[in-house]
Amino acid sequence: MPDASEKAPRFEVHPARRDRALERLERLEIELPSWGFADTGTRFGKFLQDAAAISTEDKLDDAAEVHRLTGACPAVAIHVLWDVDGCGSGAVIEGARSLAAAAKTRGLRIGAINPNVFQDQCYRGGSLANEDPSIRRRAIDHLIESIAIAKEVGSDALSLWFADGANYPGQACVRRRKRRFEEGLREVHEAMPASMTMLLEYKPFEPAFYFTDLADWGMACTLARKAGPRAKVLVDTGHHLLGQNVEQIVAFLLDEGMLGGFHFNDRHYADDDLTSGSIDPYRAFRIFLEIVRFERDAAKAGEPAPPVAFMIDQSHNLKPKVEAMVQTVCTVQELSMKAFLVDLDSLDLAQSRGDIVAAEECLKDAFATDVRPVLAAWRAARGLPGDPLEACRANGYAAAAAAARRPRKQSGGGSYA
Amino acid sequence: MPDASEKAPRFEVHPARRDRALERLERLEIELPSWGFADTGTRFGKFLQDAAAISTEDKLDDAAEVHRLTGACPAVAIHVLWDVDGCGSGAVIEGARSLAAAAKTRGLRIGAINPNVFQDQCYRGGSLANEDPSIRRRAIDHLIESIAIAKEVGSDALSLWFADGANYPGQACVRRRKRRFEEGLREVHEAMPASMTMLLEYKPFEPAFYFTDLADWGMACTLARKAGPRAKVLVDTGHHLLGQNVEQIVAFLLDEGMLGGFHFNDRHYADDDLTSGSIDPYRAFRIFLEIVRFERDAAKAGEPAPPVAFMIDQSHNLKPKVEAMVQTVCTVQELSMKAFLVDLDSLDLAQSRGDIVAAEECLKDAFATDVRPVLAAWRAARGLPGDPLEACRANGYAAAAAAARRPRKQSGGGSYA
Amino acid sequence: MPDASEKAPRFEVHPARRDRALERLERLEIELPSWGFADTGTRFGKFLQDAAAISTEDKLDDAAEVHRLTGACPAVAIHVLWDVDGCGSGAVIEGARSLAAAAKTRGLRIGAINPNVFQDQCYRGGSLANEDPSIRRRAIDHLIESIAIAKEVGSDALSLWFADGANYPGQACVRRRKRRFEEGLREVHEAMPASMTMLLEYKPFEPAFYFTDLADWGMACTLARKAGPRAKVLVDTGHHLLGQNVEQIVAFLLDEGMLGGFHFNDRHYADDDLTSGSIDPYRAFRIFLEIVRFERDAAKAGEPAPPVAFMIDQSHNLKPKVEAMVQTVCTVQELSMKAFLVDLDSLDLAQSRGDIVAAEECLKDAFATDVRPVLAAWRAARGLPGDPLEACRANGYAAAAAAARRPRKQSGGGSYA
Amino acid sequence: MPDASEKAPRFEVHPARRDRALERLERLEIELPSWGFADTGTRFGKFLQDAAAISTEDKLDDAAEVHRLTGACPAVAIHVLWDVDGCGSGAVIEGARSLAAAAKTRGLRIGAINPNVFQDQCYRGGSLANEDPSIRRRAIDHLIESIAIAKEVGSDALSLWFADGANYPGQACVRRRKRRFEEGLREVHEAMPASMTMLLEYKPFEPAFYFTDLADWGMACTLARKAGPRAKVLVDTGHHLLGQNVEQIVAFLLDEGMLGGFHFNDRHYADDDLTSGSIDPYRAFRIFLEIVRFERDAAKAGEPAPPVAFMIDQSHNLKPKVEAMVQTVCTVQELSMKAFLVDLDSLDLAQSRGDIVAAEECLKDAFATDVRPVLAAWRAARGLPGDPLEACRANGYAAAAAAARRPRKQSGGGSYA
Repeated sequence: MPDASEKAPRFEVHPARRDRALERLERLEIELPSWGFADTGTRFGKFLQDAAAISTEDKLDDAAEVHRLTGACPAVAIHVLWDVDGCGSGAVIEGARSLAAAAKTRGLRIGAINPNVFQDQCYRGGSLANEDPSIRRRAIDHLIESIAIAKEVGSDALSLWFADGANYPGQACVRRRKRRFEEGLREVHEAMPASMTMLLEYKPFEPAFYFTDLADWGMACTLARKAGPRAKVLVDTGHHLLGQNVEQIVAFLLDEGMLGGFHFNDRHYADDDLTSGSIDPYRAFRIFLEIVRFERDAAKAGEPAPPVAFMIDQSHNLKPKVEAMVQTVCTVQELSMKAFLVDLDSLDLAQSRGDIVAAEECLKDAFATDVRPVLAAWRAARGLPGDPLEACRANGYAAAAAAARRPRKQSGGGSYA
Repeated sequence: MPDASEKAPRFEVHPARRDRALERLERLEIELPSWGFADTGTRFGKFLQDAAAISTEDKLDDAAEVHRLTGACPAVAIHVLWDVDGCGSGAVIEGARSLAAAAKTRGLRIGAINPNVFQDQCYRGGSLANEDPSIRRRAIDHLIESIAIAKEVGSDALSLWFADGANYPGQACVRRRKRRFEEGLREVHEAMPASMTMLLEYKPFEPAFYFTDLADWGMACTLARKAGPRAKVLVDTGHHLLGQNVEQIVAFLLDEGMLGGFHFNDRHYADDDLTSGSIDPYRAFRIFLEIVRFERDAAKAGEPAPPVAFMIDQSHNLKPKVEAMVQTVCTVQELSMKAFLVDLDSLDLAQSRGDIVAAEECLKDAFATDVRPVLAAWRAARGLPGDPLEACRANGYAAAAAAARRPRKQSGGGSYA
Repeated sequence: MPDASEKAPRFEVHPARRDRALERLERLEIELPSWGFADTGTRFGKFLQDAAAISTEDKLDDAAEVHRLTGACPAVAIHVLWDVDGCGSGAVIEGARSLAAAAKTRGLRIGAINPNVFQDQCYRGGSLANEDPSIRRRAIDHLIESIAIAKEVGSDALSLWFADGANYPGQACVRRRKRRFEEGLREVHEAMPASMTMLLEYKPFEPAFYFTDLADWGMACTLARKAGPRAKVLVDTGHHLLGQNVEQIVAFLLDEGMLGGFHFNDRHYADDDLTSGSIDPYRAFRIFLEIVRFERDAAKAGEPAPPVAFMIDQSHNLKPKVEAMVQTVCTVQELSMKAFLVDLDSLDLAQSRGDIVAAEECLKDAFATDVRPVLAAWRAARGLPGDPLEACRANGYAAAAAAARRPRKQSGGGSYA
Repeated sequence: MPDASEKAPRFEVHPARRDRALERLERLEIELPSWGFADTGTRFGKFLQDAAAISTEDKLDDAAEVHRLTGACPAVAIHVLWDVDGCGSGAVIEGARSLAAAAKTRGLRIGAINPNVFQDQCYRGGSLANEDPSIRRRAIDHLIESIAIAKEVGSDALSLWFADGANYPGQACVRRRKRRFEEGLREVHEAMPASMTMLLEYKPFEPAFYFTDLADWGMACTLARKAGPRAKVLVDTGHHLLGQNVEQIVAFLLDEGMLGGFHFNDRHYADDDLTSGSIDPYRAFRIFLEIVRFERDAAKAGEPAPPVAFMIDQSHNLKPKVEAMVQTVCTVQELSMKAFLVDLDSLDLAQSRGDIVAAEECLKDAFATDVRPVLAAWRAARGLPGDPLEACRANGYAAAAAAARRPRKQSGGGSYA
């Protein structure tokens, strides 16, 4: 064995690896959620912020500010119920057209379309799984209308989260509800154009507290497969029971060709919707690692690595909205950059030898690397602030937004966002 | 060993034990929460019910109906912010006086007083632990005002739940906040009359998602001891991490003389606020068993067994409110009756012998006993419906309430209850 | 609505429903685990029992005693490593033949065959997912040999649990390991005769602590489907993260035609391997309800309801082994009898009306019914002791076994069972 | 607000802060567990390593090697049952004397003394809480004998972990057992010399699966207070339910003057005993931060900050023992160094202003700093290898140990370590 003292120390990153990592980072787009800029809260109430967005235009302004500071967020996901109706004055399609135009004006495009089949009173017994066929029809129609909106705004992703479930033993038949989901999703899938992907989200509980119809990745994957070939699973990093190994699920879904994308956030307990990487940054890093390693393996095998959507889904009850979003984007970039730095060849070798410590150190070395200086330089070369969060806190945007929006503010009532 | 075939079968309850159990049941008062009759929901929205209570008078009407059907619920806990202001037209004390009178008219009395120091915008950074001394002052003043209300309505319980906590690592100093809680609670305790008990609730998370200042029984117990001799711990059965053994905590607190009472409900995942006994009835039974066994031991030792308050705290998003509450009371009676049936002498003996199976069967035998017939007879002898839930579903109260309240209904916006 | 007072009280079970329930109970076979009669322990040590089985013959004697007392346990699952080698003196097939004969002599048959690919030192890096092809070969060969044993003893179930996984981030490639499992299971499936079922178990953790290759039902189901048409999922009730809704998984797997059977036990925290129904009997009842409801629906639709294997898998560190097993069988019978008593038509109706409380009460009514008297009568009519547990504790079998086995006892060292 | 571009970038650590951090690091002693060098396993078996320690001398040799490479581990905790009897040939005190001498010869001292009152068959029903007074006596005597050993070897810490608990509802009386613990611990405390600290560990489950008598920090703290003034709580970082906020508990105990020390390790699910910082390094960092911040506050107030013991308690089933321990020490040093780098004044300021993002960034900045170069230099200045893990993997110690120990190896049977 060679003298360890002769090798370069492990904390020095080889420039070639750093450059490859930056190339990959260059392609990392992080989609912003329009609802992340509005006042949100918990069931115990909302704490209101003067600078929080009220109208969809506000949300687009805020998203544009985040993109201006980070250069990584050209797309904004929208919530049909909260954004499209409130955007245009006429029919839904008209509203969608205005929305797309409003985004374009700000240098943005519309990302995933999020229908809402959980908030209206009619959905008390669920949407696609409702016992009442007329409610199921209404839900399906809304989903199909959302496809029309997506076409109009140039989006190719229909992002579906269902609150369907039950609160009590005996309340509902798991199998009957499952069959209705199969049927409804098939119809929606058929209505999608060939370029569109259906992203199917799962969640173990809340707002249903005994079971949720799409409770875990296995249920979402089963139903996605029955819906059709363009249905994939959406992993919200906060939608798992404590203890579940999220990166393993990610790797499993990648291998099955069933991973469609992410809703990023972090949590300590349940679906806490905290800032990505704020509680367990090493876990976020390991998720990114599964993706980049999969891409490398696919490239080696000459196979395509299907695109995986990176979307943020957070609910900042207390943090200033734009500031929190910039913090999120920077954190995601830092943690993914660390993942891109992992020496995959050494990792392969250590794994094949069963050398656990050496394999683990491949991850630890990359994670321990301080990527902030190289990111600052990379940003500067692109005309971006080297420290977008500092810039955001200093540039007066939030104060101006607060001044402009305060007069329009009203009570904190109403729904989630 | 005697021939097992000669003994009475285990499923036959000895009449003397049954009668003692009924005597104990006779003394079981279950306090109703006024907020349990109003529309409540999750952060994703509320599903409204025509028959749900709007005003405090409505809530008292509903509580009186539950008491009329069950005979077990003479007291109603109130929420200061939601009940007292909306009750009277003048000052708070005036409102309290009206409230007490309104309760008395309906054959009820006011139970625990629940202040609210979490909903106003000023509590964004917490209440007693807020960095801003003026907010701490405001919170303390509200608690002291609640004591005045309690005196006015003849209540001897101040029930405190704090939403204080933090969402992010670094956000707040655990120790500094703890010191402020110690100080504030001491001042509030000093303001209480000698007959009043302070009930201190704990909760691991929600609405705070990184830590809650009073996160577990240990923190609540520590702070209660520092507050003063009349401060005790309130156990909300849904405020525990998954896996926590609640009945052990109950027994431990009883032995320390620190158990003040319960908020009953059930849950599958987190603080789901489901109907008591709906998810894990055997656990509820075991909690009742700890209490009745403690009472027996105290009686044997000639020591007093301090009173333990049995209060309901549930949030029925989907079930009809009055119906759900009657179902709750019946369930609590059935499960506690089973606990009262446990043969404590045989249990003692089996435990002292280390005979695990025999000890366990003492619990299983009591739990397997169908107590519904004896409860029906016991109710009938008191002029109550033998099956209160059936009576509730058949008697038209909910329909009449819906008809009367529907016109007063408005949007589902606003706060928790 | 009819006058509730005119109806029969809810606590009276209609005789026709009771009889149908007993008919179903008649067909409930509960398979015993041979390893459940031996001394087992935790990683902190074993507490030895004089009466615990040492040899495979001892285990069969004990199983026969349980069957003699309950009449419900004609089959015994075996563990190849612990039972077959130690049984015969010659080759494995010879050992299997002796084993089958020994079982037959005692009025038993051999149930599921459980290979062991986790205990030998060679499996340090896993079995089917091992990096080393020679270890994978060895594991596959053992599984195929187990098929031969199964054929020899007349068993039609190959029950597979894999300890494969990783302890540390970076240690292993999830996707590469998954591919090896796919390959290995396919080969084993091909080696099975047409009458044989492969039961594939999942477990979230232990003995692997970062991830287990077959961590949840979704992974087991995916791999079972790739293995072949006779591979199904085995649900061990203790192999779930806290909060997971097991009965929903059961219903989902039933609907997918992928539920092969159960390992019954109970737990408070993790894979605690406690007596079935000892911690959460209502959950066990709900699992049985999913099965009986599925059978009813299949019968209505004129479709076959594939058989589901009911096997016990418990580890009684402290309870006497035979006694604990009799207690288990009685508990399973009681809880499943309650499930068989559920009024499925009323449940259907209440669910279709969205009447949550009425639907829930269908379950609660059945669960509250004391089935012990009817079970005692049913047993007596079959010449069985009315109270098998009392009979077991009184009949001296354990004392005799202890006397006979004590001299053969040695140190508590060695493996799990 | 000043121009952000004029300030030094956040990723540059001020030299003065770095130097203060190194000063604190200088005083960080990490105590090694003798049992961490022996073959350990799970209940499913042990994977044996040629180089694993067999005798206590082996363990001391291994500990000395770790100290030689890291310079941070002068003390070794011992397990009385596994180390003292096997060490000397005569009486226990004689064995202790030999042990201390053997440690001294290797440049080590003996750290915490860990009695064992869980492994012997007599402890089936518990130790201090056993129903049988003679077993309680035996357990107390062993603890008192351990104090004698501690005196003999110059240790001032008695580290107590109890496996006492119950597996089934009904098995045991929580309150009666609690009283026995109070009594037993008082007697043991009285037997301790004035210089000795009793460290009381808690654990929610395993090997007891229904409840553990000392299940959480609240129970340990309550019992420690009743034992006497020199009894403190020992926090094993893996002994918490999922979701529990460990750093909050640490801060709370510090404020109560009740934190005695740590058993460091990491986990994904339960008490997995994985390498410290291997699963959630940010959590470990936050724990260190609570300690250093407490020390700073105490210094400011002119109060003493009582010593907190940093001990490792891990079970490496698969990793090479010495290598894993060196990896652990380096990881603990890196993560604590990051914590020492946190700008506490800025953190105070941001917290007092309610500036959540700024407060959080104080932590994130320190955590993102790559401390490996400065640690390498600091080690080099002390004549230590700059990269102790690389040195350990290269220096041949493990190969030599394997060669020397292999002939002495036998079967993997027996107890935990």
